[in-house]
Amino acid sequence: MTIEQALADLSSVLGERLTRSASDRALHGQSESYFAQTPPDAVAYPETAEEVARIVTTCAAHGCPVIPFGAGTSLEGHTTPIRGGLTVDFARMNRVLEVHPEDMDAVVQPGITRQALNEDLRATGLFFPVDPGANASIGGMAATRASGTTTVRYGSMRDNVLGLQVVLADGRIIRTGTRARKSAAGYDLTHLFIGSEGTLGLITELTLRLHGQPEAISAAVCAFSDIGGAVDTVMATIQMGIPMARIEFIDTETVNAVNAYSNMSLPLKPHLLVEFHGSDLSVAEDARRLGELVEEFGGEGFRWSTQAEDRNALWTMRHNAYFAILASRKGARAVVTDLCVPISRLAEAVEETRADIADSPIPGPILGHVGDGNFHAILMIRDDEPQELETARALSARMVDRALRMGGTVTGEHGVGMGKLDYMEAEHGQGWQVMGEIKRALDPQNILNPGKVVRTN
Amino acid sequence: MTIEQALADLSSVLGERLTRSASDRALHGQSESYFAQTPPDAVAYPETAEEVARIVTTCAAHGCPVIPFGAGTSLEGHTTPIRGGLTVDFARMNRVLEVHPEDMDAVVQPGITRQALNEDLRATGLFFPVDPGANASIGGMAATRASGTTTVRYGSMRDNVLGLQVVLADGRIIRTGTRARKSAAGYDLTHLFIGSEGTLGLITELTLRLHGQPEAISAAVCAFSDIGGAVDTVMATIQMGIPMARIEFIDTETVNAVNAYSNMSLPLKPHLLVEFHGSDLSVAEDARRLGELVEEFGGEGFRWSTQAEDRNALWTMRHNAYFAILASRKGARAVVTDLCVPISRLAEAVEETRADIADSPIPGPILGHVGDGNFHAILMIRDDEPQELETARALSARMVDRALRMGGTVTGEHGVGMGKLDYMEAEHGQGWQVMGEIKRALDPQNILNPGKVVRTN
Repeated sequence: MTIEQALADLSSVLGERLTRSASDRALHGQSESYFAQTPPDAVAYPETAEEVARIVTTCAAHGCPVIPFGAGTSLEGHTTPIRGGLTVDFARMNRVLEVHPEDMDAVVQPGITRQALNEDLRATGLFFPVDPGANASIGGMAATRASGTTTVRYGSMRDNVLGLQVVLADGRIIRTGTRARKSAAGYDLTHLFIGSEGTLGLITELTLRLHGQPEAISAAVCAFSDIGGAVDTVMATIQMGIPMARIEFIDTETVNAVNAYSNMSLPLKPHLLVEFHGSDLSVAEDARRLGELVEEFGGEGFRWSTQAEDRNALWTMRHNAYFAILASRKGARAVVTDLCVPISRLAEAVEETRADIADSPIPGPILGHVGDGNFHAILMIRDDEPQELETARALSARMVDRALRMGGTVTGEHGVGMGKLDYMEAEHGQGWQVMGEIKRALDPQNILNPGKVVRTN
Repeated sequence: MTIEQALADLSSVLGERLTRSASDRALHGQSESYFAQTPPDAVAYPETAEEVARIVTTCAAHGCPVIPFGAGTSLEGHTTPIRGGLTVDFARMNRVLEVHPEDMDAVVQPGITRQALNEDLRATGLFFPVDPGANASIGGMAATRASGTTTVRYGSMRDNVLGLQVVLADGRIIRTGTRARKSAAGYDLTHLFIGSEGTLGLITELTLRLHGQPEAISAAVCAFSDIGGAVDTVMATIQMGIPMARIEFIDTETVNAVNAYSNMSLPLKPHLLVEFHGSDLSVAEDARRLGELVEEFGGEGFRWSTQAEDRNALWTMRHNAYFAILASRKGARAVVTDLCVPISRLAEAVEETRADIADSPIPGPILGHVGDGNFHAILMIRDDEPQELETARALSARMVDRALRMGGTVTGEHGVGMGKLDYMEAEHGQGWQVMGEIKRALDPQNILNPGKVVRTN
């Protein structure tokens, strides 16, 4: 009953902010994806880093696992308490603490969502650009090294966090990084915690890099007869230095789903959706140059616009694509895959994946962040067809093999969690052992989100 | 005689590529800066990662320190073998192994210098942008997380390395990262080794991110009556999203030195030097918009040009500024400082530093990468005035205090080495202990570049 003892001790500190209600536990045992429901023993809602340190110290004393929780939008089972324990929900640590417009940075708590943050920033003329689609928490986005549609221009969480406050497994509260734009002062602890998925420490504060809201935005859409032409267009655009803010690929099946869901009438072909940020002059020029490349590489129906309503329709459609795909097969759940390859291999990777899915009994529309070489097949399975989960897992495993064979990675942006743990050794070789050695050095008891990212025994 | 035993064992493996000649040892015991000459016991010139692993394994068996060496351009004593041992010089591992123009990346060995790499890349239309001034080795630049004049646009080594091959303290050879543009697959080992200064592993291969050579370049120069106007101009430029490729500040004393050294006639005032990369249209537009801001913030003499000869004169002057400053005081050596603060504090940091130096008996021109909030005072000391080194150290210590007080870092780009070791605890607090814990986990014997970055006892 060591977990019980930890919870009893913490109850006197947190009062009602430590809950064991069935509904709260169930909520924190859910997954957005296909992982089994596994509730924690309790949920804590700390309000300060000091409380988080107290929670971790108490749990460490009793060997109770500690699982950080943001908005619960993970697709890889990151927040699933597979060994029970205490989920630490950052919902009450969701404030913007400081905004420094002249330095274009902000200090925030981990529980704030990206949409709430950008609401808060609106009047400053600045914004936080990382956009994984879901309205994730900033702490969770850092912990999983999230990226998304704007990464081709603004980078991922890796590129937009200047510093962190972190509670370690022994309760120490440390700060990493500074508000300076760069530093050569020792090991890069900030980047060690970004992407560590709560296994090395709990993020309690983040200093973020902000960007100026663009003066003008243009968006464009066009169709291609195959993925090859679309990828060639994107490679040429990048090589010419035309600065795309977003460059998204959707395949024919995805177009079919979004046409039905968003009441659109795009031709049934692969499409590119593009956005440019800049001055009135530059976004017009960028769109014009892209149009020339689209023509050169056999694209058709190229249209661009600087009108907010056209743009919003386009990106609302893109953001809803996941739901459109879900709606296209009644009663289906999704196994979302996430591979990333060098862009020269992207067309081949997508084509092989498409053919493999076409040979299987389940549908799997493909869409992705083509400027990063990252794409997702949304494998649609039904619980009343129990063999479909195995089929999806086998397709996913072959996608992973494909990514590694082509010099890529098993997860471009969704993280390891439980879903990619079995592939870590294949991707990293002995480097995965080194990750385990770092884990053992910083969390020798293995109480922080155990069972994720590394294996410790 | 444990070092002797290691060298005897290695001699049979490396033959003439293990040397104990006095001249070679002296060369590898030198420092570009003010640190005492401290030769290693021997110098090895490996040709493969496997040889490096053999060297490290043998040295580990006998407790012999191993110090990696690139081009020897460090300003903070990184390569000084303060406990003796074997210097591993990467001069023979200096090849470009692969270039992937369509993916805009290249795989290189650590000993290649940035100028040699860019020569090699010239015909591809691509270049590697990180430019610390000195013709450093790429391996050394990664090991010290180097940056420089182009960081405001292209980022530092942190942003331009996709992956590494590293030899660990126990001889394991690991790979970190992939050729994919991004990944969420576990701990960011690549960024752990970047900036670790050879204390966690020896870098034996790097996968670099390349950029397209700009179609057009414009450069501009202008004077300000004080640093405040110059910094305000830069902040406004960044906030408006005008994409500067370089934005450099030189103070009046530096202008005086470069006028004499490069036979120029800039007015004796603080100056900004700016460069834009883009299309013919965009670089003209960028320069025009900057000109408006310069006027708004009280700058004068704004001139811009897209002519290569004007631009080369400007940047040759800037690259030679260090030598111009050295030449301005006969027989002087330099203590080069390197602080970095949030840009809103930059004017204040420079002004306080300038006043402090003015109150001292030694000259110290100031120049810096104003877009990053990073600047250097070149403190000019003479060996025949022995108290001057102490004066310079005291000035440097006060600069460090200033950086930390203003939310910055003790080293923006030169690294810790020996010169900043005493300030690590002040900057990182308990985070510095965490760095020590990581060092002990990966190099328990402390044989890799001992005495740098962390203290292990």
